[in-house]
Amino acid sequence: MSLIEDLQWRYATKKMNGNTVPKEKLDYILEAARLAPSSSGLQPYQVFVISNKALQEKIKTVAWDQSQIIDASHVLVFAAWDGYTEEKIKSVFDKTLDERGLPHETMDDYRKNIWGLYEPLGQAWQAQHAAKQAYISFGLAIAAAAEQKVDATPMEGFLPPKVDELLELDKLGLKSALILALGYRDEENDWLVNMKKVRTAKEDFVTELK
Amino acid sequence: MSLIEDLQWRYATKKMNGNTVPKEKLDYILEAARLAPSSSGLQPYQVFVISNKALQEKIKTVAWDQSQIIDASHVLVFAAWDGYTEEKIKSVFDKTLDERGLPHETMDDYRKNIWGLYEPLGQAWQAQHAAKQAYISFGLAIAAAAEQKVDATPMEGFLPPKVDELLELDKLGLKSALILALGYRDEENDWLVNMKKVRTAKEDFVTELK
Repeated sequence: MSLIEDLQWRYATKKMNGNTVPKEKLDYILEAARLAPSSSGLQPYQVFVISNKALQEKIKTVAWDQSQIIDASHVLVFAAWDGYTEEKIKSVFDKTLDERGLPHETMDDYRKNIWGLYEPLGQAWQAQHAAKQAYISFGLAIAAAAEQKVDATPMEGFLPPKVDELLELDKLGLKSALILALGYRDEENDWLVNMKKVRTAKEDFVTELK
Repeated sequence: MSLIEDLQWRYATKKMNGNTVPKEKLDYILEAARLAPSSSGLQPYQVFVISNKALQEKIKTVAWDQSQIIDASHVLVFAAWDGYTEEKIKSVFDKTLDERGLPHETMDDYRKNIWGLYEPLGQAWQAQHAAKQAYISFGLAIAAAAEQKVDATPMEGFLPPKVDELLELDKLGLKSALILALGYRDEENDWLVNMKKVRTAKEDFVTELK
């Protein structure tokens, strides 16, 4: 199946059946997320993979009680850096340069330029910028799940500070941004499964300037 | 090729050769972007497809003079709503319900709930939230381009207010968020083409909580 067919197949699953996603499919989805591009290659986010019913139960209580949190095989929490520092940026660039066999000085000017842009914008802006990068990775995880015929529910409907607390993200300098529940649709009990997929019409979505 | 292989094939192309992306491939990439999921299905963004060298030249001057803006076959500008209103939300929901043959009242409570959350957060927050949704769509466009073996450069390196001015986005209640330059790599002149792709190691990217 092509990506378009995969995207037509998927939907924001509202009721899952509790079946388990095999490890190789989970790993595949996480690998797609890991391969996502990000601004300056910083990848300012991580993914927490939760398959612990007690923890899922706690997350459910701060996620409008949505059943997918429990019925999912794995709950992925995408968490982004709560801000940038020049040291953090240097550390990512140094690793990249090491892997490419280039001296650390190679990216000195570039690093100074982006830090010169980011620093004055402040930590709140930086956290938003980092979170945005996680959305690209999240999109690729959704595509990978659809390709693997794993159902997925993209979720913003939770209280990020509460999830941060549950996962102790503060200590790691992270803030929860997004949740992706992975599992399998419960065809009989999901009200959305047979509904038409509706999107903005192409003519309203695309404007060509030739 | 699988999505993972496509993602390994792609890279942020630094030098393009000026060749033209065929219409069917362009349409395919835009369709993937259109099928992206978004918060409450609002799709608070649009895509401007620019294949006009004079306009590309103007954009290049406000995009750190990056050559891909000119050498790309098509420059995609992802622009997000500059805020939400209850009317805008209602209009999207009504269209969805029409297509599903359901009465408009079906989503009244849901709409009131999300507007109750979004309104007090203010327009700046809303614009950020809308922009974030565009990043998911952007991720899927990147995946689609890679599948179609079209090169793509994801770009945040431009001055959004200047691009807004050039495309007269204010009049449409939009703000430019992202640029995706589509075209074909110039293998001989692209410094990045043969560099190793570097990403955060899996053990640093994924934390399993079992």
